Formats: sequence, structure tokens, C-alpha cells
Amino acid sequence: MSATNIETVAEQIKWDEAGLVPVIVQDQISKEVLMMAYMNRESLAKSAATGETWFWSRSRSELWHKGATSGHTQRIVSMHYDCDGDTLLVLVQQEGAACHTGRYSCFYNEVGGIAGTEAVQADAPKKEGAADRFAMLSQLESVIAKRYVERPEGAYTTYLFEKGVDKILKKVGEESAEVIIAAKNKDNDELRMEASDLIFHLMVLLRDRGLSLDEVMAELGHRHNKNKQNSN
Amino acid sequence: MSATNIETVAEQIKWDEAGLVPVIVQDQISKEVLMMAYMNRESLAKSAATGETWFWSRSRSELWHKGATSGHTQRIVSMHYDCDGDTLLVLVQQEGAACHTGRYSCFYNEVGGIAGTEAVQADAPKKEGAADRFAMLSQLESVIAKRYVERPEGAYTTYLFEKGVDKILKKVGEESAEVIIAAKNKDNDELRMEASDLIFHLMVLLRDRGLSLDEVMAELGHRHNKNKQNSN
Repeated sequence: MSATNIETVAEQIKWDEAGLVPVIVQDQISKEVLMMAYMNRESLAKSAATGETWFWSRSRSELWHKGATSGHTQRIVSMHYDCDGDTLLVLVQQEGAACHTGRYSCFYNEVGGIAGTEAVQADAPKKEGAADRFAMLSQLESVIAKRYVERPEGAYTTYLFEKGVDKILKKVGEESAEVIIAAKNKDNDELRMEASDLIFHLMVLLRDRGLSLDEVMAELGHRHNKNKQNSN
Repeated sequence: MSATNIETVAEQIKWDEAGLVPVIVQDQISKEVLMMAYMNRESLAKSAATGETWFWSRSRSELWHKGATSGHTQRIVSMHYDCDGDTLLVLVQQEGAACHTGRYSCFYNEVGGIAGTEAVQADAPKKEGAADRFAMLSQLESVIAKRYVERPEGAYTTYLFEKGVDKILKKVGEESAEVIIAAKNKDNDELRMEASDLIFHLMVLLRDRGLSLDEVMAELGHRHNKNKQNSN
């Protein structure tokens, strides 16, 4: 990094009358939006220099190194500004909870009563198009990421995380054995269920190990492209 | 929806001096952040009533139905406000491009020179507009289906199909064992590769058994929705 670079960027930003710019913070792994906060020039420079997020607290009127007291720091993966330069988007690796309430994300208050949302939500997983086919994986990944941080009592995913990686791996082994048995039984109902179980536990494992589905997809893509030459 | 409901929400929102609240718009499918804009009370009410996004244009000082002229409307899937009620997050089904430049997202300007991001990014794959996070699964499924029918000589997938289901199941067992070993080694590179191998062989198995990924996704969705009650 060079200070010049960040100074150049600072010139592109439309700082508001208070000298601030809103910053959207997004989880690199689940792609969930975690919070929004504000930066001034100094906190942008500090963020660039340290690779962690620094904001300007509007309520306390002070520079604020996110996680300095809670330990819930945010390692910056990438930063973008938008077409009119008045908003920043930061992708982070979040330690612990992003929200001061201990929640995974600050956006936990759902607004009800919006026309048509029930129909759209009911429709969502069934929509055609390659991307929509796998919307459930995104949703599951988000739920798992939330459980990982919040550990709600009584949830099965909480149980897995609390028991730890050995328990999760036992389930991976068990579910793959059940996939094998279902296939040998030529029972597709059973196979469908066991394959789902295997995928779910594999996703829990990835979250436990801090590996995103995007990384696994990239690996699959990498092989696919390499193998196109040797025809896989 | 009831007007009362949205009015109640409007009371929870900390409108700024200009009577506005920033609104983050996120793609329901890819989870990419598409844009940020502002709502006033009237545009929030319009959004709730129509199920599409309406904003307040700060530059034109007018109510603005997103996509009214371009056709690039945003159907609202859900809306949340944050812990301190000063930001909204809207999940949408986006028609066409969100950005007025014709780009998928407004956040296309990358900020360089942030300490440590190269190392962090090397760990994670670079993603394009990623409406297609899981496009690779579709592609792979197609290639596998083609191999199943065409059996091109020398292709690994052909080899698996020719050997038959026992061979495929041996690979499923082997790859899941390798996932377990990689996780125990705390080696995420290894885990990423073994998880990819497991997914690939699972997909070959599903093809061999005539089960589609859609059926497995539907099963995952079914459980997910059922478990939301018992919190999974």
C-alpha cells in the first residue's frame, strides 16, 4: 500500500457536510451485511494502514477501532466505493459478533407488512435459472454462520459447534456411509435425504474451519477448467 | 400489509436531519450488495405498498421509483432495520442492472493499497458479479450428464460410470475420509480440495442414480423451513 493511493481514493470520495462517508460492512464468507458505520478521512487512512476497520463514532465523536475492546475486529478483505463515490463497501473477515448486542449482524429487526413479500419468499427456492437453483445453499450458509456466532440454545447446529470438530467429522463420516448404503439399496428417497445430510454437515464443517463455499466453488471451477483439456 | 405496521416501523427509524435513512440494497440470489440509496417516510410507505423499491433522490430532490424508466425494478424480498434504527437493509430480486452505468452493482471501484488484503485475498477466490456463486455446480452437473450419455474415451467421469456404482461409492467413502483427515490436520488448502472431490463424486453418484441436484436442494429447503420452527 502507499499513502498516496489512499489519498487518491480519499479525493474520489464525496464526504458529506460532516466529513463522513457511510460504510457497508459485509461478511466475506456468508455475504451477509453485518453493519453500517461511518468513516472520516482519518479512519479511512487508519483502516488502510492497519488492514482492519476503523470508523468515526457519530455518537461519541471519536475515532473507533472496531473490536478494540470486544476483540471483535474486522480484517479487511477488499474495499470498493460506488458509482457516485458516496458509499464504501468493505468485505471483512469478522471475529466474533459484528453487532454490539452480540448478534451476528446488526440487521435483525424484520420489517413486516411489505406487499407481496410472502409470495416472493415462498417462490424463492423454486425459481428457475442456474443461480436460483442453489439459493438454498446461500441461505443455509447464512443460517450456519449466524448459529456459529450466536449459538442459540436448543439448535442442532449450535450443538454441533459446541461439541466441536470431532463431532462434526463423525457426522460427515456417518452421513457419507448412509449415502453409500442408500445407493446400494437403490432407494432414491433415502439417497436424497442422506445426500442432503452430508451436504449440510459438510457446510457446518466448512464454517467451523473458516472456509467459504465460494472457495470450494472456485476449486471446483479450477479443476473443471484444467480438466477440460484432459477431458474429465 | 397494514399501513399501521409500516407507520410503526417508521417510528422506529432514526430519520436524519433531512428526514432520510440510508438503504442498503442486496441481491437475494448472489448476496452481492448492489447499491445504496435513501428513503424518506413517503418512499418507505410507497415501497411497502407496492413491494418494489422507491427512494428519495437527493440530487433531484424527488421521489424515485427505481426502474420506472429503465425497467430495472427491484422486487422486495425482505426488509430489516439495524440495531440503532438508522439504516435499512433490503433484499431484492433485481431486474437487469442495479447501477445506472449498466453494471450489475454500483460498487465496481476497488480501493487499492489496504494493508494485508493481498494475503487475505490470496486465501479467498476473486469473484465476479457472482449472481453465479454456484454456477459451477450447474456447469459440472451438465458436464457429468453429458459424460454419462456420451462416455468420451479417456475422461475420468467416463471411467467412473464404466466402473459402475461400487467404484463411485468407494470414491465417496474415500473422499469423505480425506475431508476428515484434512480437517484434523487443520489444513484448509487440503480441506478445500477434498471437499471439492467429495462434492464432485457425490454429483457423479446422483447422476448415476438419476437423482437431480434440484431434488437435493428441495430436500435441504424442506428441512430448513421445517427446522426454522424447531431452530436447526
